[in-house]
Amino acid sequence: MSVGNHSSIELIKSFLFPSSVAIVGASPNPSSIGGQILVQLLRGFKGRVYAVNPKYSVEKIYGKEIQFYKDISSLPEVPELVVIATPAEVALGILEEAGRSGVKAVIVVSGGFAEVGRVDLENELIKIARKYGVRILGPNCIGVYNAFNGLDTMFLPIEKAARPRPGPIAFLSQSGAVMTAVLDWAAGEEIGVGIAVNFGNRSDITEADLIQYLGGVEEIKVVAIYLEGFRWRGDAMRFIKAVKSLKKPVVVYKAGRSDDSKRAAVSHTAAMAGDYKMYRALFKQAGVIEAEDLVELFDIAKALALYKPTRIEKALVVSSSGGMAVQIVDALNAVGISVPELPQEAQLELKKHLPPVATTSNPIDLTGSGADVHFGKALEVGLKYVDAAVVAALIHPPGYSERVADEILVSYEKYGKPIVVVSFGASQQTKILERRLKERLVVVNTPARAAKVLSSLGALL
Amino acid sequence: MSVGNHSSIELIKSFLFPSSVAIVGASPNPSSIGGQILVQLLRGFKGRVYAVNPKYSVEKIYGKEIQFYKDISSLPEVPELVVIATPAEVALGILEEAGRSGVKAVIVVSGGFAEVGRVDLENELIKIARKYGVRILGPNCIGVYNAFNGLDTMFLPIEKAARPRPGPIAFLSQSGAVMTAVLDWAAGEEIGVGIAVNFGNRSDITEADLIQYLGGVEEIKVVAIYLEGFRWRGDAMRFIKAVKSLKKPVVVYKAGRSDDSKRAAVSHTAAMAGDYKMYRALFKQAGVIEAEDLVELFDIAKALALYKPTRIEKALVVSSSGGMAVQIVDALNAVGISVPELPQEAQLELKKHLPPVATTSNPIDLTGSGADVHFGKALEVGLKYVDAAVVAALIHPPGYSERVADEILVSYEKYGKPIVVVSFGASQQTKILERRLKERLVVVNTPARAAKVLSSLGALL
Repeated sequence: MSVGNHSSIELIKSFLFPSSVAIVGASPNPSSIGGQILVQLLRGFKGRVYAVNPKYSVEKIYGKEIQFYKDISSLPEVPELVVIATPAEVALGILEEAGRSGVKAVIVVSGGFAEVGRVDLENELIKIARKYGVRILGPNCIGVYNAFNGLDTMFLPIEKAARPRPGPIAFLSQSGAVMTAVLDWAAGEEIGVGIAVNFGNRSDITEADLIQYLGGVEEIKVVAIYLEGFRWRGDAMRFIKAVKSLKKPVVVYKAGRSDDSKRAAVSHTAAMAGDYKMYRALFKQAGVIEAEDLVELFDIAKALALYKPTRIEKALVVSSSGGMAVQIVDALNAVGISVPELPQEAQLELKKHLPPVATTSNPIDLTGSGADVHFGKALEVGLKYVDAAVVAALIHPPGYSERVADEILVSYEKYGKPIVVVSFGASQQTKILERRLKERLVVVNTPARAAKVLSSLGALL
Repeated sequence: MSVGNHSSIELIKSFLFPSSVAIVGASPNPSSIGGQILVQLLRGFKGRVYAVNPKYSVEKIYGKEIQFYKDISSLPEVPELVVIATPAEVALGILEEAGRSGVKAVIVVSGGFAEVGRVDLENELIKIARKYGVRILGPNCIGVYNAFNGLDTMFLPIEKAARPRPGPIAFLSQSGAVMTAVLDWAAGEEIGVGIAVNFGNRSDITEADLIQYLGGVEEIKVVAIYLEGFRWRGDAMRFIKAVKSLKKPVVVYKAGRSDDSKRAAVSHTAAMAGDYKMYRALFKQAGVIEAEDLVELFDIAKALALYKPTRIEKALVVSSSGGMAVQIVDALNAVGISVPELPQEAQLELKKHLPPVATTSNPIDLTGSGADVHFGKALEVGLKYVDAAVVAALIHPPGYSERVADEILVSYEKYGKPIVVVSFGASQQTKILERRLKERLVVVNTPARAAKVLSSLGALL
């Protein structure tokens, strides 16, 4: 059924980095889909934006006089990307016109196709696309979010759905609502997501095309995928091939594993029925890392984007709380990472600098009597003997402040070994600390998440 | 070693609900321990507060003229509770004076006892307490937080450590730093914690005393415990006995399970060495629910405080996102809860009210085309056939708003069946939604947490 072929992979660029975008079904009303996409693009897109709708001529939108064109052929240039946000029936004619005008990339946001039983309309759409060699994203999708150039077809205002800052993670989502929720959440967690794409009914473009293309996008270091299931066997084969040839890690969270949920997934995205075991085998064959939920998907993706792949066998634990240290050691041991006692020479060195009540064996418990600088000293001395560190930065006691962040970052710079931070709290000071750390390190709120992150760093070695 | 005996259990009241508190080692300097405790009590304690320190006479603190007394016997009354915040050596003499003056309850915040090897000083402390029949919390503890009456000996300003609102959970923590971090986190999560206690070196009062006393505190519905290990065999026996006689659920998170962490726990709280298996057997015998980390400890505690104990076999899943619905079904099935198709009559009823593209079988996927009221309708029709519901309230699509919260609460009121909400996002609107729901329902960010909460509701039946 797929329109795409490998020679047309360069067209994927037009979906992510077009120089010009035309929105067909644009409107001055920001609560309509076409109107909201127009506002988002006028607000942030670094390229030329054209509004297409025969009902309007010139309208003031987002403080600018915006000219509306009556159709694609009236535009001053052939737009590199067309976004169709009209009813399904109208969309077919627009695609025909786009194809005739020489457009090669079209996002069909419009719903009303296979997902409501109108397979006929969807087949017609594909037929038109094939005739003109046009590639399609969708239909029935929320399309693309590109934080690098402001391309954003998500048709939701930021009060409803926050957008993350640019960063090294690309997110491919089989569900539009999951993509929206994840980006909103990532914004709050200060996770940098550079590019996100939702495929909707995936009538043409799927994960495989994007994975292949993202290999050449330097800013993207990791590809994170939310998947319910492939639709055809060929889909799965192209996915494996794309992942294998990509020189970047791919992390997948596959939902629809259990009996009740497979039924739901089939009705949701027409996902290929199939045992979860089959998917696991396939992921293993492709060299994909699996996550158990959306939070873990992004924990692992962020870790792989920030840290060098390393097999972690021994870890240092540094904590201002003996209790949190104990919990972290439990979690590390549970995934097979040991927390070995430091050698005598290291402990003697530590005793010179740490508070007299501190324990120096590993975990290093600075206790409530320590100060910011002791985190730095503990890491500086201890990191030499291990592959990575987990730091419980509970800065509530009087001697600690948000400057613990700087102490941790200095040692991270020096050794280049992965440091994961466990933070627990909501006070002003703790929030400042987290903000300072999140751009450079993985910061989590439970020991189990920290342990999983470290064990995933060696998953592809 | 214990000073306590069962006839003195009524003295525990004096540690939590005293009518008067004297702080020995009080100071006008808020960055000293005694100074910070004084500020906290002046700010919020609903009772009489006395400052004791011979170095001062009258000082202006927190906008009030505060008289300092030179010792306990100079106070206008025998205080119901004394808090000692002085160096260890001085503490012994103060305890002696307190005992002589008729004081029966003393929190020894001061460190410098067994935890730094001064077992002699700690034994001396216990000897004095025994002589006068005084009960001791500590030494080396952060003491008590009581949100109901403002008793707060945590000696940290709120910018460093936020305090939660009053609520039905009591938290007993073997680690002071863990208690501080948990309360700070609970404040951010809007989890109501009525009472929290840290035992420090637990020379006298331990979990068993508190559990026994909390049985009579009506506002407290659940006891959550962070435990590294008992110190003596008798400790464990008293714990079992107390839990068994308590008519409220007890949830425990036991850290120090693995080999490396047992070593750390022994050095941290002198916890009794022993296999984690032994503890599990003991918890089972006592009828305690176990949690796997601090977040789960509070998920379960909150659920048991809010919902009736019920064995959950069948659940309804309602979602605005088909993708999130699939993930929730996976998680429910994984803990043995089924998500059965609704009978035809229910589906026909739903089809009358839900958007045409919605799926009605269970999970009910309202899709991105739904509106607030559809959440209410789906719950109203579906809850009849199940034991509980999980609602994925992703309100990003245009038709949804924070009023989804009201829709959910109406059905919760009507049926009284547990509803757990999965929310994922950080936008303004999502935050408002969460705030409206958190007082009445458990709100989590992953399907696995929701499933664990529902399965724990039947754990004690």
